[in-house]
Amino acid sequence: MTENRVWRLRSRPVKNIDEKCLELCKEAIPTIGDGQLLCKNLYFSIDPTHRIWMSDIPQYMPKVELGEVMRAATVAEVVESKNPQFSVGTTVVAFGGMCDYFVGFPGGNVLYPTGKYGKLPITADLSTCSVIIGLTAWHGVRKILNPTKGDIVVVSGAAGAVGSIVGQLCKVSGATVIGIAGGATKCAEMKNVYGFDHCIDYKETKVEETLKELAPDGVTHYFDNVGGEITDAVLRNARNKMKYALCGSISEYNDSWNGQKNFNMILMRRISVQGFICTDHFDELADATAELSKLANEGKLTVKEDIRDGLENYISVVNLLFSGSNTGKLILKN
Amino acid sequence: MTENRVWRLRSRPVKNIDEKCLELCKEAIPTIGDGQLLCKNLYFSIDPTHRIWMSDIPQYMPKVELGEVMRAATVAEVVESKNPQFSVGTTVVAFGGMCDYFVGFPGGNVLYPTGKYGKLPITADLSTCSVIIGLTAWHGVRKILNPTKGDIVVVSGAAGAVGSIVGQLCKVSGATVIGIAGGATKCAEMKNVYGFDHCIDYKETKVEETLKELAPDGVTHYFDNVGGEITDAVLRNARNKMKYALCGSISEYNDSWNGQKNFNMILMRRISVQGFICTDHFDELADATAELSKLANEGKLTVKEDIRDGLENYISVVNLLFSGSNTGKLILKN
Repeated sequence: MTENRVWRLRSRPVKNIDEKCLELCKEAIPTIGDGQLLCKNLYFSIDPTHRIWMSDIPQYMPKVELGEVMRAATVAEVVESKNPQFSVGTTVVAFGGMCDYFVGFPGGNVLYPTGKYGKLPITADLSTCSVIIGLTAWHGVRKILNPTKGDIVVVSGAAGAVGSIVGQLCKVSGATVIGIAGGATKCAEMKNVYGFDHCIDYKETKVEETLKELAPDGVTHYFDNVGGEITDAVLRNARNKMKYALCGSISEYNDSWNGQKNFNMILMRRISVQGFICTDHFDELADATAELSKLANEGKLTVKEDIRDGLENYISVVNLLFSGSNTGKLILKN
Repeated sequence: MTENRVWRLRSRPVKNIDEKCLELCKEAIPTIGDGQLLCKNLYFSIDPTHRIWMSDIPQYMPKVELGEVMRAATVAEVVESKNPQFSVGTTVVAFGGMCDYFVGFPGGNVLYPTGKYGKLPITADLSTCSVIIGLTAWHGVRKILNPTKGDIVVVSGAAGAVGSIVGQLCKVSGATVIGIAGGATKCAEMKNVYGFDHCIDYKETKVEETLKELAPDGVTHYFDNVGGEITDAVLRNARNKMKYALCGSISEYNDSWNGQKNFNMILMRRISVQGFICTDHFDELADATAELSKLANEGKLTVKEDIRDGLENYISVVNLLFSGSNTGKLILKN
């Protein structure tokens, strides 16, 4: 170990994230001061929000500045410690960034030690039990939507890490769950593996019409990961007083943020929309991981991890999210 | 009285409401059956929602069908009664429609007798104390937004009947109120007559930039009557967790319902949006009119009524709403 590979942001993506946006620099391994840790990243959480952080639109955290290390949630191992609370060998959840080594500040970019979730692997801290995935899904379902038996929940981006958990949590509550995903394989998987009642293939069918057939009296709850035309189709199928948890708009991130053409349906159908960001809800993490890890350990919650190899492959791996080429939680192993 | 003038919908407006859309027919005065009333319209409530009812977009009540009498809320006098509960001479609030006479069905299109609101005129039942105006403003402020001292409320369509009441109710609660209206005269009036703290002239200034100056820490509450570009500008100035009461989108009604380009701000700023329609909240009318009539009688609430003459002038009068040429509640006297 003599060098530190660091992905630095060089220019903001216009559409797709490409080689012009990021440079893999070779740098010296940083030195640490009192109270600090030297951490080595083991796993990187690769999320749609990376595209937001790279852009300069108004956003929920500071954007990544040009020249900075690309931000990412990671699981990392403490390899050197000048902090008595963290011994060498401890694994932690951190905003470690897209690099081999980083200086860890407990209470800052080092969030908490990795959890112990029964049979679940250490990567559960970036998927089933993470802030970005597990808590996001759990907060949206348990704190915003609260569906029950008789309700009809639509989940866009159903095959994504958040979407697949959302649908399963809604099934635990007895609701009917309709996913929206791209491709016959994914749609079959949503039903056969994740237990969704239906899954609409947006690449093959007209979402608005298909949804009308599946839910002729309208949709009561909507968990949205994608925005754009799919959301416009769902809005046209809203039942009066539909609850709408707005979690993400991935279809817009590489585009020009066109917004929602059918915004008027929010008025006409008296919809309540709640935009939310997981980082506001750290205080619910214990409750969320208690339910999620229990369900997962009992075999009642399936969370697939799509683990790819090599920090150097970051650009091609992050783009899998935007072409819809992954199923489940995308993780990069170092 | 030998004939009944009736505005019938002939074609749906493409943009503006014009002579091709509506025909003023001369018809026989209808006869009534047992339990029914013959009612003569005295005042018509002329509201932006007329444009919605004429269109065939999905909406919150059945659209007006081609050939039907144009729908309108009215104050009417019972001129013949075959119902012991309503004697001749009684005045009622009704969906009387745009015509001289109509058959009144108590419990159907006849809603309730006009109220007694101290010094307020009978037209208060179409303005300060009506379902479409007073209840709408009251529900949005008291049941959705609930602003208090220190909050910064923005009201679009501030010079409209609903908007002017909204701002005053928010001032009663101690909030800072910023209106958005068109033209220097209206804006001065919002401050001098209605007590708004500020009013942005959207015809003369850039709303997004001006709002940023007036509320550098962001807007906490938004009551929206207009949608479109003005709403996009407000969304860009939202503080985290802004509450957004969506009451109307008048800037969109004559256009192609372009929707909200800056929808992503709902996510980034964790905004909660509540679409609402007054007709869902009849049960709150007594509470609403109690507060509104008390304030108005005490001189703490100013509601202007812009009363125009002549059923035959319906088309030119309703268009005043869309050119922003009225201030306060637009009413047509028969």
